[in-house]
Amino acid sequence: MLTETLKGEVDVTIGIAVIGAGYWGPNLVRNAQATPGLRLEYLCDLDEARARKVLGDYSTVRTSSSLDEVLADPAVDAVAVATPAATHLPVAMAALRAGKHVLVEKPLAANYADGRKLVDEAERRGLTLMLDHTFVYTPVVQHLRELIRSGGIGTVQYLDSVRINLGLVQPDVDVLWDLAPHDLSIFTAILPDDVVPIAVSAHGSDPIGAGRACVAHLTIELSGGAMAHVHVNWLSPTKIRTFVVGGSTRTVVWDDTNPAQRLSIYDRGVDKADPQTLPEDRRAQAIVSYRSGDMVAPALPEREALRAMMAEFADAIAVGRRPLTDGRSGLRVLSLLEAASASLAHGGAFMPVLEDSELMEVSA
Amino acid sequence: MLTETLKGEVDVTIGIAVIGAGYWGPNLVRNAQATPGLRLEYLCDLDEARARKVLGDYSTVRTSSSLDEVLADPAVDAVAVATPAATHLPVAMAALRAGKHVLVEKPLAANYADGRKLVDEAERRGLTLMLDHTFVYTPVVQHLRELIRSGGIGTVQYLDSVRINLGLVQPDVDVLWDLAPHDLSIFTAILPDDVVPIAVSAHGSDPIGAGRACVAHLTIELSGGAMAHVHVNWLSPTKIRTFVVGGSTRTVVWDDTNPAQRLSIYDRGVDKADPQTLPEDRRAQAIVSYRSGDMVAPALPEREALRAMMAEFADAIAVGRRPLTDGRSGLRVLSLLEAASASLAHGGAFMPVLEDSELMEVSA
Amino acid sequence: MLTETLKGEVDVTIGIAVIGAGYWGPNLVRNAQATPGLRLEYLCDLDEARARKVLGDYSTVRTSSSLDEVLADPAVDAVAVATPAATHLPVAMAALRAGKHVLVEKPLAANYADGRKLVDEAERRGLTLMLDHTFVYTPVVQHLRELIRSGGIGTVQYLDSVRINLGLVQPDVDVLWDLAPHDLSIFTAILPDDVVPIAVSAHGSDPIGAGRACVAHLTIELSGGAMAHVHVNWLSPTKIRTFVVGGSTRTVVWDDTNPAQRLSIYDRGVDKADPQTLPEDRRAQAIVSYRSGDMVAPALPEREALRAMMAEFADAIAVGRRPLTDGRSGLRVLSLLEAASASLAHGGAFMPVLEDSELMEVSA
Amino acid sequence: MLTETLKGEVDVTIGIAVIGAGYWGPNLVRNAQATPGLRLEYLCDLDEARARKVLGDYSTVRTSSSLDEVLADPAVDAVAVATPAATHLPVAMAALRAGKHVLVEKPLAANYADGRKLVDEAERRGLTLMLDHTFVYTPVVQHLRELIRSGGIGTVQYLDSVRINLGLVQPDVDVLWDLAPHDLSIFTAILPDDVVPIAVSAHGSDPIGAGRACVAHLTIELSGGAMAHVHVNWLSPTKIRTFVVGGSTRTVVWDDTNPAQRLSIYDRGVDKADPQTLPEDRRAQAIVSYRSGDMVAPALPEREALRAMMAEFADAIAVGRRPLTDGRSGLRVLSLLEAASASLAHGGAFMPVLEDSELMEVSA
Repeated sequence: MLTETLKGEVDVTIGIAVIGAGYWGPNLVRNAQATPGLRLEYLCDLDEARARKVLGDYSTVRTSSSLDEVLADPAVDAVAVATPAATHLPVAMAALRAGKHVLVEKPLAANYADGRKLVDEAERRGLTLMLDHTFVYTPVVQHLRELIRSGGIGTVQYLDSVRINLGLVQPDVDVLWDLAPHDLSIFTAILPDDVVPIAVSAHGSDPIGAGRACVAHLTIELSGGAMAHVHVNWLSPTKIRTFVVGGSTRTVVWDDTNPAQRLSIYDRGVDKADPQTLPEDRRAQAIVSYRSGDMVAPALPEREALRAMMAEFADAIAVGRRPLTDGRSGLRVLSLLEAASASLAHGGAFMPVLEDSELMEVSA
Repeated sequence: MLTETLKGEVDVTIGIAVIGAGYWGPNLVRNAQATPGLRLEYLCDLDEARARKVLGDYSTVRTSSSLDEVLADPAVDAVAVATPAATHLPVAMAALRAGKHVLVEKPLAANYADGRKLVDEAERRGLTLMLDHTFVYTPVVQHLRELIRSGGIGTVQYLDSVRINLGLVQPDVDVLWDLAPHDLSIFTAILPDDVVPIAVSAHGSDPIGAGRACVAHLTIELSGGAMAHVHVNWLSPTKIRTFVVGGSTRTVVWDDTNPAQRLSIYDRGVDKADPQTLPEDRRAQAIVSYRSGDMVAPALPEREALRAMMAEFADAIAVGRRPLTDGRSGLRVLSLLEAASASLAHGGAFMPVLEDSELMEVSA
Repeated sequence: MLTETLKGEVDVTIGIAVIGAGYWGPNLVRNAQATPGLRLEYLCDLDEARARKVLGDYSTVRTSSSLDEVLADPAVDAVAVATPAATHLPVAMAALRAGKHVLVEKPLAANYADGRKLVDEAERRGLTLMLDHTFVYTPVVQHLRELIRSGGIGTVQYLDSVRINLGLVQPDVDVLWDLAPHDLSIFTAILPDDVVPIAVSAHGSDPIGAGRACVAHLTIELSGGAMAHVHVNWLSPTKIRTFVVGGSTRTVVWDDTNPAQRLSIYDRGVDKADPQTLPEDRRAQAIVSYRSGDMVAPALPEREALRAMMAEFADAIAVGRRPLTDGRSGLRVLSLLEAASASLAHGGAFMPVLEDSELMEVSA
Repeated sequence: MLTETLKGEVDVTIGIAVIGAGYWGPNLVRNAQATPGLRLEYLCDLDEARARKVLGDYSTVRTSSSLDEVLADPAVDAVAVATPAATHLPVAMAALRAGKHVLVEKPLAANYADGRKLVDEAERRGLTLMLDHTFVYTPVVQHLRELIRSGGIGTVQYLDSVRINLGLVQPDVDVLWDLAPHDLSIFTAILPDDVVPIAVSAHGSDPIGAGRACVAHLTIELSGGAMAHVHVNWLSPTKIRTFVVGGSTRTVVWDDTNPAQRLSIYDRGVDKADPQTLPEDRRAQAIVSYRSGDMVAPALPEREALRAMMAEFADAIAVGRRPLTDGRSGLRVLSLLEAASASLAHGGAFMPVLEDSELMEVSA
């Protein structure tokens, strides 16, 4: 709602409703309440008692079991959707058609075609459509994004992400669709514009007979020759979250289980030397030289990623600009996931990824 | 040499020569000297000065630049070959033909066919042919072998090995042939007899233009549906050596960079439950239950793996038995490496692995 | 407030007010709201705007700037005091005199004499007086308490706690009074009844000229000959929280910065052997033998300590029983802190600690 | 032995004998053999068979059971003494009187007076007397020495060393005399010349009845107001070796159990601000400000400390200069140990330490 102050200034307060009181909804509720510029109007869930319980006994926030009721309320300018992925299309589409800005829990939709419909609708209406790619808003990823895109590690040589944990086996999606969106959205955020995914190969296994892959490996060929790899695993008793980006001048290691030193930047690596004056048979060794420099762990601000994400949503709406993790970033992740699923179904063969230019055409 | 003691007993002392004074040879020299039952007779290298330097100023051990001279000496009962892989066939074959027992640095030979010739020759002559798969002799792998093969972790669900480090880019082999033999020989040692590799897929990249893969991922389909994965990388500034074996009742994590707690055995995981009484749509979740038990880090003996390996060589010769890492274990590793190379050359397609029964026929 | 249900049962809901909206108050507010059996009635602070801000824009909880108002309200059965230590006596005393149960942030009071007045008053009136010794309610300390007091580590040989971090230099207390209460309350909770503090020595330094010790070491002589040591430090850029209890049969190590493995129980140590048959000069070595067994990291429940603490407060009031961290446990901590301060003032000389029997007499 | 080369240059090769084939002797043997400029002539032990066994079956080095024989041999220019501390005085004195340079295992002697005799004798004769304070020659301590003495961490605010492990209970010395010399020699090496120990307090306990302290805490008052603390413990099942030096501009943390990142330099800490314009009651907080900068882990050379120590011994003899860890550094450690023992005997009271000026007079 836009309210005019005495001095004639427009003081923007955006009324927001959270849809879905399940696993993720309570986090959105908490952060929506704490974000300046947002006013939480509703927590909406088919099971209204569940919504009531999430809010607790001391809250003035309204609950509703009716999406229609919420969307009909002019106090609601935006909705945050935290329902199962299969329902993202109808819920988010209804919201967009009611003229609401939309924040969607990852993945954008159950498949690329559905996601494309949402992006089209939002762009046609000039509404903000944003993905809750939470990791993109962590201080680490923000630091990586600036470092890598400004050339701070040279050219990217490889990326490797391990995200394994004793995770909930999901009833509707495999481990790739559950966990890899985190890594894929981070790749999208930190890679330079000219390093794009070309093709994807995926291997998965279901050793417990759950009916879907519980362990999976994703290999992504990037333009320029680098390779990205993602290992996701629901069955590991230990939590490992290690993310490495190797560059020609520096290499960064992000260990998310080590809060005291999440990010380490190594001025250490293997360099290419000029072999031109050497005989053919000695070139292999000669072109390589080793550097052994210091490691720096940069001081990072302590900040909740979800808070920063919510602030980005509020600001993008208020200013009318594209948010960092807009609908297209969600489409990019979906195109990679679909290619991965196709590869899984074809014995790990590499499957091409839609190019960005094609993505651009989506809403052209 | 066999020497008869006064009491008529045969006291076996095996004369040994180390061939190759490069990177690995000095370790064999040191351990051969310290192993009861072995007597180090020669260190042999084409560059005799190098051999002299390895021995130092205070040694009574002979050097030689002539393999023929060494093989002709009746004091030499066995040789340990630590020359480049491409020379393993001629050096080891000459030794076998001279009636010497042979210990070979990994890999057994430059390719499967060459390795097969060595295995055939050794079996024909009744000589010991052993691989220096050092990791197999670490206390950790010995513990894993006993634990896993006795059913201590239930059925194997997945294996995952990460072996990354700032490694020397080799002039003759890629990162798979350089590092993966460690993991493949460990798999061979610890897996139950009925869990065998079926097919291999490999992805690699050469982001520094070294002319060969410097980063590679290996996926192995195992009989029974489990998947093994190996990530090897020469370009990482940080050393990671994490080896996980997930089982249906326990999961083991081996972190070789943590000497204070190399092995952790988790009584924690995901179990399959009986879904028979449930409606179809709830089965996916219902078949899974989670356990959260204690973790045990077993006390392991402190023992140098290379010492134990050398003792196994001496004992196998003395007793006339097959060593743990015999020629066939070397062939198994070669068959996996060749399948991996074939996959690399075919865009990551899965390549079948020779079955053990075929391996058996090798020397039949 | 006691409310009678239709069936005539008494359903106890305890009205509670939190006093103090500073550093710790918001944590009490959050947990009081989430604790069954408690109903948060007020957040009270001299700066009512601050209290309002802590509650946020969506709360139905009342604020007040008047302690009198809060204490006069019959809906308030209990108060949780999170004001500066110097005000604990007047605030808590007023609450007790108004017939309210009292939970006090550590330390109980600014000195032992003041704390004793509060304990006396509460016991005279039959009201619950409880200390928020939060660490005592962590799953780790609960496990340690049961393990150690049941003889699970044999006799206690030594305790060592390091609690260092870049901490806020407090305006009113030194680092001992700020941080050591955590360790002293843990000692009190986990030690067997027959192992009691005898004397305390403390060394401190103020290298930044803050006017009070910023680095301190506390040595406590325990009955039975064991020694406990505490190192507290506000100036360390790295956070270390390591707590070791050495026992004759097992030793436990608690590393609170390692959430994946906070507690490790080692079946490893030094044993006393029987030297009676040995000559005098060989006894020193002979009486010692070394054990090297497994390490176990027990599965611990994931539970917020503050939630468990608050539940203990609610239950102690409802049932009318002594809480685990009652006023006397607060007095024990104060007696150790006073001895430490006296030692600091006397060059580190050992100062006697009031015995438990004397503590008993306090309220007799 | 000095040998003249054809060109008339003096090529110095120093003949050395190692005395003592027990725990430490083999390390000296190995490093003496590998050090250019040294020639190992003897390994001497009362138990000659033990010496023979240490050398192994392939060595040309002579053994002897007679110190006299060794000292009478003109091929021996220097001796390295690795016998029990109680014998250091007679062995090293005999060597000095025979005109030999002497390297002594720490501590220099069983007490300060004995050590003083050795320093006097060596200085009188112009012979090199050096302590094997191995840690001083680690890359970490060399880096710390340069960093701290050049002002790189500002003024020293505190030092803290924890050295705990399951250690051998020694038959002749307590844990302080066994382990603290490492820390005390490091302090001596890294502290600026104007920061000297003033007084020492020590607390110890013997919970296993070994007849000597097995756990001890040492507090050292330094000139300038900083405090150093050492915790040594033979009974801990886990190895902790953490060494922190807090400075006014930077703080360094050395974790010797983490080979991948032994040294971390934090540009983080607590600063003193200027409180002059503030009212009295706000000064305590106001004088403090917090910095939160990056952490740097410097690249350190990989080098065996014992090798560097041995090279220093050879070079000091060849050049005729004072070695870094000369006899006086050994005396400084002894004076601290004696003060610690005196404090232990007097309930932890602070005992004064001989000043450096007094140490200077020792040999004046």
